[in-house]
Amino acid sequence: MRICGVSSDLALEAHAALRAQTGGEIPGVAVNRKSFTNGQVTVVEIINDIGTQAMGKPIGRYVTIEAPAIRQTDPKAHQEIVRVMTQELAAMINLPDRASVLIVGLGNWNATPDALGPRVVDAVMVTRHMFEYVPEAVEEGMRPVSAIAPGVLGITGLETAEVVEGIVSRVKPALIIVIDALAAGSVERIASSIQIANTGIRPGSGLGNKRRGITQETMGVPVISIGVPTVVHAALIAHEAINRLYQSFQQQIPPQEHAEAIIGQLLQPFGGALMVTPKEIDVLIQNCAKIIAGSLNAALHKTVSSQEYASYLQ
Amino acid sequence: MRICGVSSDLALEAHAALRAQTGGEIPGVAVNRKSFTNGQVTVVEIINDIGTQAMGKPIGRYVTIEAPAIRQTDPKAHQEIVRVMTQELAAMINLPDRASVLIVGLGNWNATPDALGPRVVDAVMVTRHMFEYVPEAVEEGMRPVSAIAPGVLGITGLETAEVVEGIVSRVKPALIIVIDALAAGSVERIASSIQIANTGIRPGSGLGNKRRGITQETMGVPVISIGVPTVVHAALIAHEAINRLYQSFQQQIPPQEHAEAIIGQLLQPFGGALMVTPKEIDVLIQNCAKIIAGSLNAALHKTVSSQEYASYLQ
Amino acid sequence: MRICGVSSDLALEAHAALRAQTGGEIPGVAVNRKSFTNGQVTVVEIINDIGTQAMGKPIGRYVTIEAPAIRQTDPKAHQEIVRVMTQELAAMINLPDRASVLIVGLGNWNATPDALGPRVVDAVMVTRHMFEYVPEAVEEGMRPVSAIAPGVLGITGLETAEVVEGIVSRVKPALIIVIDALAAGSVERIASSIQIANTGIRPGSGLGNKRRGITQETMGVPVISIGVPTVVHAALIAHEAINRLYQSFQQQIPPQEHAEAIIGQLLQPFGGALMVTPKEIDVLIQNCAKIIAGSLNAALHKTVSSQEYASYLQ
Amino acid sequence: MRICGVSSDLALEAHAALRAQTGGEIPGVAVNRKSFTNGQVTVVEIINDIGTQAMGKPIGRYVTIEAPAIRQTDPKAHQEIVRVMTQELAAMINLPDRASVLIVGLGNWNATPDALGPRVVDAVMVTRHMFEYVPEAVEEGMRPVSAIAPGVLGITGLETAEVVEGIVSRVKPALIIVIDALAAGSVERIASSIQIANTGIRPGSGLGNKRRGITQETMGVPVISIGVPTVVHAALIAHEAINRLYQSFQQQIPPQEHAEAIIGQLLQPFGGALMVTPKEIDVLIQNCAKIIAGSLNAALHKTVSSQEYASYLQ
Repeated sequence: MRICGVSSDLALEAHAALRAQTGGEIPGVAVNRKSFTNGQVTVVEIINDIGTQAMGKPIGRYVTIEAPAIRQTDPKAHQEIVRVMTQELAAMINLPDRASVLIVGLGNWNATPDALGPRVVDAVMVTRHMFEYVPEAVEEGMRPVSAIAPGVLGITGLETAEVVEGIVSRVKPALIIVIDALAAGSVERIASSIQIANTGIRPGSGLGNKRRGITQETMGVPVISIGVPTVVHAALIAHEAINRLYQSFQQQIPPQEHAEAIIGQLLQPFGGALMVTPKEIDVLIQNCAKIIAGSLNAALHKTVSSQEYASYLQ
Repeated sequence: MRICGVSSDLALEAHAALRAQTGGEIPGVAVNRKSFTNGQVTVVEIINDIGTQAMGKPIGRYVTIEAPAIRQTDPKAHQEIVRVMTQELAAMINLPDRASVLIVGLGNWNATPDALGPRVVDAVMVTRHMFEYVPEAVEEGMRPVSAIAPGVLGITGLETAEVVEGIVSRVKPALIIVIDALAAGSVERIASSIQIANTGIRPGSGLGNKRRGITQETMGVPVISIGVPTVVHAALIAHEAINRLYQSFQQQIPPQEHAEAIIGQLLQPFGGALMVTPKEIDVLIQNCAKIIAGSLNAALHKTVSSQEYASYLQ
Repeated sequence: MRICGVSSDLALEAHAALRAQTGGEIPGVAVNRKSFTNGQVTVVEIINDIGTQAMGKPIGRYVTIEAPAIRQTDPKAHQEIVRVMTQELAAMINLPDRASVLIVGLGNWNATPDALGPRVVDAVMVTRHMFEYVPEAVEEGMRPVSAIAPGVLGITGLETAEVVEGIVSRVKPALIIVIDALAAGSVERIASSIQIANTGIRPGSGLGNKRRGITQETMGVPVISIGVPTVVHAALIAHEAINRLYQSFQQQIPPQEHAEAIIGQLLQPFGGALMVTPKEIDVLIQNCAKIIAGSLNAALHKTVSSQEYASYLQ
Repeated sequence: MRICGVSSDLALEAHAALRAQTGGEIPGVAVNRKSFTNGQVTVVEIINDIGTQAMGKPIGRYVTIEAPAIRQTDPKAHQEIVRVMTQELAAMINLPDRASVLIVGLGNWNATPDALGPRVVDAVMVTRHMFEYVPEAVEEGMRPVSAIAPGVLGITGLETAEVVEGIVSRVKPALIIVIDALAAGSVERIASSIQIANTGIRPGSGLGNKRRGITQETMGVPVISIGVPTVVHAALIAHEAINRLYQSFQQQIPPQEHAEAIIGQLLQPFGGALMVTPKEIDVLIQNCAKIIAGSLNAALHKTVSSQEYASYLQ
């Protein structure tokens, strides 16, 4: 669990926390913001090792789309978000025509807040087999795309990275796109932000246990990751409540270990495995999965307009 | 949301909170405890109006089975728990042979922590139609049992009590048994306690919104309720963390409204709809549903031993 | 099982079979056809008792939309089909503003070909509760709509009509719309035809066992039924194969009882419960459910354009 | 599709068809039968190339358990079947203690009759990760077992054998056990027979398209396959009906191509993708998955009695 902002899975949160601490610009990090009708896009670029050191994240590009309308059942807003996400994805993907892509949906399909990856894999358009088995059905502008949800350690007995590595060694994609559910630093981020990064998945990030990362180093091909916060750790909520209350009275916040001991006791016998989710998490995950799958379809295949695939997702 | 112990959905918690406050016996309330290998059974009997007033619950019998082994994948322990629950149910049911029973699984099948009722309905043995359509298949000792999961307001547009009333008016069971997921007062109760009560379901109890109760008064026949805590409200965790921390420093706890304002802000934009659940909630709900369905099968049909139905649940 | 065309669940098939037999117009029955890009609409109107006698169906309007594109993943075609179906539904519904509608999804959610009704109920927009609980969220042109999937006899122990009657007695809708999966007379109808009728559901029709119908007579309010063929009975396939083969040799077809005995033996030990379905039935049911739910949303609420709801179905 | 008995997926059917044709013993093939209370076990042993040639199957051991009680909800019968299957599996597995096993559940989880493999993977006990992450929880007699459902070509874009090969190259199990749904030669075999073979999965067998097999040759380690018939091809039913009818009249059966043309036309537009399944296929698949998972648990781990795992399956 990561409870201080700096090591948040979201570069955006890490950057904001760091600026709050230091009160100034972060060297080695460039930030750009632009707005659209239903939200904003923030690009955090970690340029060099100084940036990496400060942010605790590898050099790379981290794009965050913030759009609270993801949570609403609002087709028009969703279409705009798909359009924006398609552009950001397309800019990052940058592959020759017909170069093959493997989509990997991380997470546990039996645990709703962790099921984002598998749901995207269910919804995304898969075409790789058509190139071999029904080439006559392949349309101009299509690209070979395959997709797999490798499951989690507890239900397969297999380390996720092992499974993905094995498949990559046979399928030899030109690019891997990994989708994962994240733990947010605050409740309002749940199902309202989507992060796209060109640095892959680091060990220990996301909701599940990951001993090894899924990155260009481990896989031998570029890895883009797409993440959406779907939970906040219960302990983090408790810590925040305490901190805010003490601050409001301008009392001195008790030592971190003290609060941790009390919160640890409170969350027995589940400890770090307690998650805070909204009641309607099933619907929220479904909304996110549709938006991500629609954007992937439009960004990966030239023949698919984002309009079309926003409007019709299996 | 009910955050103070006295109005907990569990009579056991309400009673403990009240004793902690008053420091003595509660008049109008009798409590009995007995142990079994994997846990204990507590019977809280609210005897008269004085007890009702103190406990905030109607006159009746509230049996709580506490057995943390429900959370483990431990077949032998589960069999013992089914045996104990079968006895407690059988003692409460007390119907003539062949009197008909309607099982009602409350809750939302699309929201895991609220899906306990529908899962029990899926797993329970249904026999009512056999008496009419295939009487030759009815075995000695069987009773006509029907079961329905009426859904929740948000997915049907119908008040649960309306649906149940309508069905009861046609089906005319001799007894209704209602299953519902509850919000607990503490994390350690999640999926470890089962409450059986002969007072039905009060309005506002359980996880969903209920404007009207399902009780002997509203339904015209006796109603037994079975409830299992599956979540704790996120706000309650935050309140508890604050209270315990201040207590540990022997500081004065800040005014309730002050903490509430801060916690309310922290839980924006979801408010009371934020739930704390363990990651493995899907498995826990499945364990509970099997134990409850097995106990119902054995308690309702004389031919079904609890042994048998513990050991084989669809 | 209904194996001769005349008693098919589809008025269209019954009419065609009858014309093939008699070689002329059917008195008391009017038929109209119109085409659209992706298919055609046939309206069979049974005008009087002579028509009823000939067709084996009550007086009423039977609209069949035939559109093989339902089976393809073709968003544009589906949008056109939704537009056409919305018009046909709107013409049949004909209710005052704000008159309340109950949608009933018949069938068994655990048996894919029989799950059409429950899937439509999952996908349709439900609004009745908003009028009471959040009136400020009700938009101009909305109508109170509720929806329930009552399950089937084998999983509830309850006769479907009992459950619906009970709910209707409490909810008092101005109109009931019932969705059901049908057995077709030929394989090519599977997931390619949608029948809308204003005569309700007769006992024995559809895939499940129904002792009593859901009609204006039994329910006290008008009932519109929507049906889609999703299976062909295995016995019917076998009969057809035999008939066609003998015909092709101009041999005399063996006596019906003889073929029935042989086919009955062949289909042991499952008998009439053997269904022929395409492998991809899950996807086909999903396509049909989306199209029906989209059309219902647009036909029931003035604010929802069929365009919009074709394009965005939960 | 394989419609003549000789090339049936079941060695038992192939052998019976061959004996019916030749009227005598099949050279190179040994057959043994033994009974148990709820059924019988037949071992077909293909001993040499002569047997292979005759049977159209590789040299190996094919054990078929026939037990119609699999279809009933009969816990005691299921326990006996698990006990028998455990013995047959244990005899075939024959591995050193702690040698690691990979279970592969073939098939499409979105198509019920093809979902047997994925359902077994859901239900089976997975332990491999415990040896590395929580070695203190590993009990005496446990073996490292992992399990994966690789999906099918149409939903992943990946050839099943590619995925399995990739995983095997990383995980290096000592044995692979593959579970697959089969097409039967007759309706009465559906969900009543389980075949265990030590020859792996040949290309083209089972319900899905498989270009490459999963065998010791392709995978580099021994492969045991477990198969259960879950459907009969619709065309086969039609052929059988025709053949039996003509036989009953002692008429000459029309040329095979003629019947094929007529049946092909009858099954348009779905062709070979039309399956005959019983309505209750979901329950039947669930029964089979539980029995197979229970037997695997007991055969793979010395500490798990078949009694225990028959009686308690997740």
